[in-house]
Amino acid sequence: MAAARTVLLTGSNRGIGLELVKQLLGSPRPPAWIFATCRDPDGPRAQELRDLASKHPNLVLVKLDVENPSAVTDAAKVVEGKLNGMGLNLLINNAGIYTPTASLDTVDAEDMVRTYKTNAVGPMLMAQAFLPLLKKAAQDSKEKGLSCSKAAIINISTILGSIKKTPDSFFHPVISYRCSKAALNMLTMCQALTYKEAGILCVALHPGWVKTDMGTQEADLTVDTSVRGLLSVLPILSEKHSGTLLNWEGKAIPW
Amino acid sequence: MAAARTVLLTGSNRGIGLELVKQLLGSPRPPAWIFATCRDPDGPRAQELRDLASKHPNLVLVKLDVENPSAVTDAAKVVEGKLNGMGLNLLINNAGIYTPTASLDTVDAEDMVRTYKTNAVGPMLMAQAFLPLLKKAAQDSKEKGLSCSKAAIINISTILGSIKKTPDSFFHPVISYRCSKAALNMLTMCQALTYKEAGILCVALHPGWVKTDMGTQEADLTVDTSVRGLLSVLPILSEKHSGTLLNWEGKAIPW
Repeated sequence: MAAARTVLLTGSNRGIGLELVKQLLGSPRPPAWIFATCRDPDGPRAQELRDLASKHPNLVLVKLDVENPSAVTDAAKVVEGKLNGMGLNLLINNAGIYTPTASLDTVDAEDMVRTYKTNAVGPMLMAQAFLPLLKKAAQDSKEKGLSCSKAAIINISTILGSIKKTPDSFFHPVISYRCSKAALNMLTMCQALTYKEAGILCVALHPGWVKTDMGTQEADLTVDTSVRGLLSVLPILSEKHSGTLLNWEGKAIPW
Repeated sequence: MAAARTVLLTGSNRGIGLELVKQLLGSPRPPAWIFATCRDPDGPRAQELRDLASKHPNLVLVKLDVENPSAVTDAAKVVEGKLNGMGLNLLINNAGIYTPTASLDTVDAEDMVRTYKTNAVGPMLMAQAFLPLLKKAAQDSKEKGLSCSKAAIINISTILGSIKKTPDSFFHPVISYRCSKAALNMLTMCQALTYKEAGILCVALHPGWVKTDMGTQEADLTVDTSVRGLLSVLPILSEKHSGTLLNWEGKAIPW
């Protein structure tokens, strides 16, 4: 299967997002354009991303806070300008936040709402704003069916958002995170049902428990292994996967 | 099984909430106290509730907007005062809002957040604020295991919050509602796992598609039938149901 020619990722200055950028850049057939967004591409926490951009002319840094609706539409205009008539094949909603201490004893309304805005509302706004570019990619593609090389929305979710699997991992209650990701899983299903007609694949992916700032060093997967897994899953995705939650090895996770 | 002696319901001035109040008042063994909360118990939309309260001294109207954290804690103090040393057996989180037109084309961040605050964050805040009274009821009970007559949190959810069932009902996309209710379902699981130790049952119930202001007259169940069903399910709930989503006939719905 062909690889996506144009890709946009949110939350790309560190963790899984940064590793996705690196491995995409290093792939045998790198995308023509990688749009790597983060809240502050000029700040100290985006140094590694800037270093990469200085070496890779196909990597474009775009300022974006997914919580801010007008910032999302502004970013879509910037990307549209750069694409200059091309569509966007692959939107990866990776930006997410997490309050490690949020048990039912401690979680409050402010944390619940803030986490929901970034983890569920953000991906909804991104898909709305980039929909014309995703549709363009689908229309320009000669491929039948749905695929990531044609047009796709990948929402980076988590097994912690699986209600059914919650008893297995409740030693980490993380209430605000779990609720936001259960909502993101629902959003993914709604996107799959809505955007199917337009030729856009929509899948939620669980990257595993990964050694990042979010996952901590206790985690059981390196970011390299997780991202290698995620990138090997993307090419196998088709219609039958749209509206599902899969892990980094392509295994289905129940809701 | 014994019936709950003390009950609190949110969103009780109309629809399913009002009918729950009526049928509880008319039951063979009505509760010693029914706390019926709504946003404006003195307003024109609570006339029927006020008429009932004038005839039933065990019905207490309490002003409460579940979106407002300090209003929730204030209401808990009012209820604690009335209970005068008794616990609260049954908390029914019924208040909910709904944007009928919210497809992915039209839904916006404001609607997503507003709906989440009422439908998911509200029930979380209610359980936190009323936890001491629910624990008291559990401690004072001689019953083994978990039950609604001992101590329980019932979250009124919906099959529209079931991710798995979404393809069957997507002719009503209602994105903001679905995402908030998927999160409420996750919250219910987290509450079941957290509050089990304290002897509190936590269940999400789907009332069916009901002829109310929210459900419209197109709906297939009368509010009388739905509430009769819900009230017949409550007494059969036990440990094995905690952390599940059931319909008004007691049938399990997948997440």
